[in-house]
Amino acid sequence: MLTRIDHVGIACRNLEAKIAFYESTFGLTVASVELNESQGVREAMLHVTDTAAGASYVQLLEPLGPDTPVGRFLERRGEGVHHVGYGVANITAALTAIGASGVRLIDERPRHGSMGASIAFLHPADIGGVLTELVQAPER
Amino acid sequence: MLTRIDHVGIACRNLEAKIAFYESTFGLTVASVELNESQGVREAMLHVTDTAAGASYVQLLEPLGPDTPVGRFLERRGEGVHHVGYGVANITAALTAIGASGVRLIDERPRHGSMGASIAFLHPADIGGVLTELVQAPER
Repeated sequence: MLTRIDHVGIACRNLEAKIAFYESTFGLTVASVELNESQGVREAMLHVTDTAAGASYVQLLEPLGPDTPVGRFLERRGEGVHHVGYGVANITAALTAIGASGVRLIDERPRHGSMGASIAFLHPADIGGVLTELVQAPER
Repeated sequence: MLTRIDHVGIACRNLEAKIAFYESTFGLTVASVELNESQGVREAMLHVTDTAAGASYVQLLEPLGPDTPVGRFLERRGEGVHHVGYGVANITAALTAIGASGVRLIDERPRHGSMGASIAFLHPADIGGVLTELVQAPER
């Protein structure tokens, strides 16, 4: 069902500083910087590699304010890994199968994610503490 | 410098239960289960995908006891993402470059990791709270 590790989502306090760090230290390149008001973040996708099933990224997330999911995460845990996103070929079919297995779906239906993808989050309490995201990349 | 997301390392309390969960819920397959006494863990590598630069895995980590790095992580944070491992082509060259950039190296020299890889950890305090591992896969 999972086709790749699409991205690792990392919560940070200063997006521009963290982008510069990943560029200079690890040689990553910025694929996109977006404002996602519905998720309460500014975010950057830094390109790591391409796979047969799509690309993989480091996703940096800066909250728009303290009363957002990532803002509360930073308050509680500090900077660090916020979630893991896996590629799927068909997100609707994947959500149906995963929901039937007993995992609670945060998003019953896909919504818009970074770079035109369709995404949905699964409940971390049912996945060993890992906030898990499914990502169906847009048609190329 | 980074060639892929090699793996996401996830701390768990019961390795067999978590392997079964990732197999049944996400259709992943076990590539290896190893005892790593020097790191104080039993660990499983679950295959997600192959890339031009190597494979990507979910790595599940069960501590051998409470007084181990992963045991202390579980006590402090609970189950969840413990670290992120990135592929590199030449781990010695990567460590030299990253150390020169000012990031503290937990491992000054590579050591043995899962499935015959050479690995080294970088200090999370210098990478925005993300315990980061470099992985040079063995020659195939």
